[in-house]
Amino acid sequence: MTLPSAKLAELGLDLPPVAAPVAAYVPAVLDRGVIRTSGQIPVVNGEPVCVGAVGADGTDPGAANEAARVCALNALAAAAEVAGGVDRLAGVVKVVGFVSSRPGFSGQAAVINGASELFGEIFGSAHARSAIGVAALPLDVSVEVEVEFSLRED
Amino acid sequence: MTLPSAKLAELGLDLPPVAAPVAAYVPAVLDRGVIRTSGQIPVVNGEPVCVGAVGADGTDPGAANEAARVCALNALAAAAEVAGGVDRLAGVVKVVGFVSSRPGFSGQAAVINGASELFGEIFGSAHARSAIGVAALPLDVSVEVEVEFSLRED
Amino acid sequence: MTLPSAKLAELGLDLPPVAAPVAAYVPAVLDRGVIRTSGQIPVVNGEPVCVGAVGADGTDPGAANEAARVCALNALAAAAEVAGGVDRLAGVVKVVGFVSSRPGFSGQAAVINGASELFGEIFGSAHARSAIGVAALPLDVSVEVEVEFSLRED
Repeated sequence: MTLPSAKLAELGLDLPPVAAPVAAYVPAVLDRGVIRTSGQIPVVNGEPVCVGAVGADGTDPGAANEAARVCALNALAAAAEVAGGVDRLAGVVKVVGFVSSRPGFSGQAAVINGASELFGEIFGSAHARSAIGVAALPLDVSVEVEVEFSLRED
Repeated sequence: MTLPSAKLAELGLDLPPVAAPVAAYVPAVLDRGVIRTSGQIPVVNGEPVCVGAVGADGTDPGAANEAARVCALNALAAAAEVAGGVDRLAGVVKVVGFVSSRPGFSGQAAVINGASELFGEIFGSAHARSAIGVAALPLDVSVEVEVEFSLRED
Repeated sequence: MTLPSAKLAELGLDLPPVAAPVAAYVPAVLDRGVIRTSGQIPVVNGEPVCVGAVGADGTDPGAANEAARVCALNALAAAAEVAGGVDRLAGVVKVVGFVSSRPGFSGQAAVINGASELFGEIFGSAHARSAIGVAALPLDVSVEVEVEFSLRED
């Protein structure tokens, strides 16, 4: 298996800095070999990069797909920090993706593919996933992604 | 304990075929004895069977309850495949049920009972559960259910 | 480490009674050292204490923050029951908080801080968390919180 760090290099991706712990929660927690991340939003250098409900009269689904990829990269950085480096991660077990949606928009799966495909490129294996359309998200972002990673057992 | 396969037979239920893996995610993943399914939607023979928001002016809550049962059966099939058969499943640990809802509809629990009751009939034990009303779901389905199963330890 | 029971006493908090199991699901399940609670709603003595969508034209976000604290205390009681007492809990691994929201309300994080801060006070450590704005919740409550706790290993 190619190590995750090598895949990131191939893709030309650097792990972003992990946001400082806010109040009473942290970006990720490791317990019994599973790393659960907090819901990650599409923030680059501290600023949201994709806001508003996604759909015909709103935010472009393609832009939201790219934002989901940003969320996934932020989740990877958060998990790597508690795992002791990205190469300690065996893979992704589960993704839950929330997409800011008005009634009538049903393209949540295509949006969250932005996260799933990044994880596929890095780990070369697939995960379980749910994609959900929600009324509103913190900071009015268009997408939020939470992830469970599995720690390597060796 | 009656085996899950025997309970399915008693109920006259066959496990449906598991949907082929789509892109970068799969129907279920086994990690450290826990099987997490993807969000399952009420699809029979590849077609959604219950669409639209549930409630007074929309989809009948009773139909959505039956759709939740379909989701649960799809989840069971997905979990059985990665567990090595339905009888390798010890039971259900957690259900999260998302119900397409407009503001003012508060009957999500009764809808998701369709899933919980099927699992109760099959495993004879109860699980933790959340029921949530959401703005929209993929393919405009009325309900989506994700499940965590526990693998037998023997 | 101060035991959770001592922290509760310091805070002047009693664990509420755990709601009787309803139909096919239960308030919490222990599996392989992880306790998953059902979605907890702000119920005191069997009655919802905070209902309606949160935001400018609706339920006060401060009241919803207090309701999230009530949810967290209910979750703690449910987990303590299956763990064999609150002092068998090592801490909180993950919180998912759902806030009844209309489009345009983006203050979900501040609402769910009511839950996170209670867990911080009791366990002195932080957890991963997602905060989501949803269309509607059971019984029209304003907030629902589900929690994963870790069991002590000693």
